[in-house]
Amino acid sequence: MSKMLDEIRQQPAALERTLRSELKGVEKLRTLFAKNRPKVIILAARGTSDNAAQFGRYLLEIATGIPVSLAAPSIFTLYGARVDYKDALVVAISQSGESTDTNLVLERARECGAFTVGITNEASSTLAKIAEHVILVRAGREQSVAATKTYTGQLMAVYMLAYALGAPVSLDELRLLPDTVAGALKLETEIREKAGRYRYMENAVVVGRGLNYASAYEWALKLMETCYVVAERFSSADFLHGPIAMVEQSFPVFLFAPAGVTWPSIREMIARVHGLGAETLIITDKSNKEAASMKGTRAIVLATSLHRKSAVPEELYTPLPYIVPAQILAACLAEEKGLNPDQPRALEKVTRTM
Amino acid sequence: MSKMLDEIRQQPAALERTLRSELKGVEKLRTLFAKNRPKVIILAARGTSDNAAQFGRYLLEIATGIPVSLAAPSIFTLYGARVDYKDALVVAISQSGESTDTNLVLERARECGAFTVGITNEASSTLAKIAEHVILVRAGREQSVAATKTYTGQLMAVYMLAYALGAPVSLDELRLLPDTVAGALKLETEIREKAGRYRYMENAVVVGRGLNYASAYEWALKLMETCYVVAERFSSADFLHGPIAMVEQSFPVFLFAPAGVTWPSIREMIARVHGLGAETLIITDKSNKEAASMKGTRAIVLATSLHRKSAVPEELYTPLPYIVPAQILAACLAEEKGLNPDQPRALEKVTRTM
Repeated sequence: MSKMLDEIRQQPAALERTLRSELKGVEKLRTLFAKNRPKVIILAARGTSDNAAQFGRYLLEIATGIPVSLAAPSIFTLYGARVDYKDALVVAISQSGESTDTNLVLERARECGAFTVGITNEASSTLAKIAEHVILVRAGREQSVAATKTYTGQLMAVYMLAYALGAPVSLDELRLLPDTVAGALKLETEIREKAGRYRYMENAVVVGRGLNYASAYEWALKLMETCYVVAERFSSADFLHGPIAMVEQSFPVFLFAPAGVTWPSIREMIARVHGLGAETLIITDKSNKEAASMKGTRAIVLATSLHRKSAVPEELYTPLPYIVPAQILAACLAEEKGLNPDQPRALEKVTRTM
Repeated sequence: MSKMLDEIRQQPAALERTLRSELKGVEKLRTLFAKNRPKVIILAARGTSDNAAQFGRYLLEIATGIPVSLAAPSIFTLYGARVDYKDALVVAISQSGESTDTNLVLERARECGAFTVGITNEASSTLAKIAEHVILVRAGREQSVAATKTYTGQLMAVYMLAYALGAPVSLDELRLLPDTVAGALKLETEIREKAGRYRYMENAVVVGRGLNYASAYEWALKLMETCYVVAERFSSADFLHGPIAMVEQSFPVFLFAPAGVTWPSIREMIARVHGLGAETLIITDKSNKEAASMKGTRAIVLATSLHRKSAVPEELYTPLPYIVPAQILAACLAEEKGLNPDQPRALEKVTRTM
């Protein structure tokens, strides 16, 4: 078995550990933000961590009403710009905590007046030392080059950050998330069987919307780095503005299809690509009855209903369990293709870029 | 000849017209911003216009020091979030001015306290009516579905907006830009010859960094919508964090290679992909001597030196002339492939998404 698959399976325990261990620090942060509410939030990251940042970009803006931006590291690392970060919260996300450019953004942001938070898997990393506050992802050492348990750990840290900022994210609901991930893991055999179909797939399009836009980026990245599939990632809205022209019968469209406000646009997208002769594979859960029983599409259906009766969008918690079948599919497909998902060509675990 | 190619050729005149006609309004905006400087800038757009916004994301933050964010329209259109936009400048960019979600973002932003600017090609559009200030792109009616002259017109409008915000962008230098675009147009015959090589290309990777990150998005979009090529777009930094694993001999890497701070990272990227057996095609200009004479890569070399002796980054003005060879290559390649670049399958000129 690949380390990647092993680490995918460790996720419920890792998430439970992260939530439990970091709660005290996050409560402290909550008190602090109650007094000094940031006026703008900037998220800095690369690679898989940048996908967690993309998730944060949606979650934090939707749930706190504070404008959020994804940092463009080169603005600091190459152009040496000075940006006005008074009243800004700058959050750097990095598995290793040794991503050179992400760390430089954080350093420069402190100089420019920002309050800084680091989200990392490594307590003694450079990032953990630079940031004023650290939310530690307690996933344990990640050995596969393809990040999985640190990605979901980063999502959990972002939920906790939202809680600290006073968002309507409840700790009781976060405590249920490891179980929803465990539920997703039960689909491994089914997903392994489904993976065979894509043995000779060279291209794929991955689509998600809103809170699961980041999930599309992350699934595409896993397919690119472990299966060498040319996977393009889009929001369903952007996809209709041009790229849909390239869809053809020979490659499938993978979609995240939770119940809720994004479903009508995902449903329209499925109809459009079926009309072009392409096939689809969706990840959904039982609460989206229409998706789960849809004709003409293949579906991976999570058993756990993620519908919540609360003030938050109904798919708020879906990105965490939904990425798990995507990870499993990438790991199994790499094996089907005779590739080693733990050691993709041309990649190392820590990438240093400026 | 395709309408797309015809409209590509109209760009110098369109740019000159836009700059001349909009100057007065932009000076008024400059007086206004001198009194009320925005604390954060949000750019909202879709499709090609979103690539112009991506350029603005870099230019405005580098040149003004104000934090800039790209809007995620679904936060308003699907989630109905209320975001605190006090002291924010929200800029919507749309060729037609009838992009439903972009307009909704602008409306909601006004309600949330933002000052609003619209950049559009249509004076009587909904966008022009909603925005408090309009910078009109005077490109003339665009008939090809593939946007070209409105994209470069939007870039010009973004430069003018930077000027209005007090950035070190000089009007004298902006006045030189139509000529640099005219210089790029002279390469049409050479580019048409180069296009033949890619007749059977199904995949490509397009790379740009910093100010030309947006150029990579726009070239990729043109290849996707007019040639049905599966074109992935990356910054050279992101590319090394995973996606480089999928590069193989059977598809090329296209890069924007201006002189200046991004060149070392682009040069490294070229060496890395050559090491993997892939070939490269670069767009550069004579001032980047190393790139223009590089062994083992194909190069489209603009004659105009774009080096400026000023306080601004030396490749500040490259995105405008550099996109032109990319547009020409897409238009010529579509013809080589027997496709009609003016009417891509599954696309209409105005895309309405929510």
